[in-house]
Amino acid sequence: MPPGDSAAARIVSALTTSHTTIAVAESLTGGLLTAELVSVPGASAVLVGGIVAYDTELKHTVLGVDAEVLAAHGPVHPDVAMQMAVGVRSALAVRGEPAHIGIATTGVAGPDSQGGQPPGTVFIGLAIGGDVRSHALRLSGDRAAVRAESVRLALALLEESL
Amino acid sequence: MPPGDSAAARIVSALTTSHTTIAVAESLTGGLLTAELVSVPGASAVLVGGIVAYDTELKHTVLGVDAEVLAAHGPVHPDVAMQMAVGVRSALAVRGEPAHIGIATTGVAGPDSQGGQPPGTVFIGLAIGGDVRSHALRLSGDRAAVRAESVRLALALLEESL
Repeated sequence: MPPGDSAAARIVSALTTSHTTIAVAESLTGGLLTAELVSVPGASAVLVGGIVAYDTELKHTVLGVDAEVLAAHGPVHPDVAMQMAVGVRSALAVRGEPAHIGIATTGVAGPDSQGGQPPGTVFIGLAIGGDVRSHALRLSGDRAAVRAESVRLALALLEESL
Repeated sequence: MPPGDSAAARIVSALTTSHTTIAVAESLTGGLLTAELVSVPGASAVLVGGIVAYDTELKHTVLGVDAEVLAAHGPVHPDVAMQMAVGVRSALAVRGEPAHIGIATTGVAGPDSQGGQPPGTVFIGLAIGGDVRSHALRLSGDRAAVRAESVRLALALLEESL
């Protein structure tokens, strides 16, 4: 597949053209979403970086997710995904400027359930300017499949939103 | 390959046994090193998280690399790798405790040179307690190959050090 044909390459190209920066916050995908964007040559023009907040406390202390939301709902919740997407823009601010776009993943990769949520429960958070949304996914497959499909769908949602 | 046979699985197993936590700081590998550890079921017992400081400024503001070192040498330098490994332990502190181990990657994935360094120039930083080291690598291959080999060698160095 030529580089230009991947969703990540199309996203990097579109963001480069519009001088738009992006920051990534990940939980279950563990760095794979950031890595997919980094795989595109020239990604440094738009991707400032990513934070894998694997420990739940880091979603609060580093990404700014409300401690009350985490206590009430656990880390796998649409509000958490949205707040991760909003928070990472500021957490990875460059020259005092938050990133324009924040994208986030939280969910249960399995094999065990987490906080009463079955494996395959995933929320994608997307913050573009003042527009903040979450998307709920229910995926099947093993740990690797859930993570890979989460990355694929996160990129598809982002591309649709540009 | 059974899960227990990967370097990442052996590392997660060893760290779990010794109640040792780890944090990851990445530049050229862009999340792949963190993702390799997250791929192991039960990784959450030892991996607190990771930071992809892709923009050079974030290596200073988020990971605490000396601005003078970055200004003098650029982001691809053994001192930067060591300071990233040290800094990420505190940047991702949980319950007030820095992670026990920090591991970091910085380098040139290509296709272009960066700061006078050719593609394939990579430094791995490793901070275990008061022991802080960097390892210099000179890798061949394209962008994806350089990143994959950096991850593989970082895990090998970590495993040897445990």
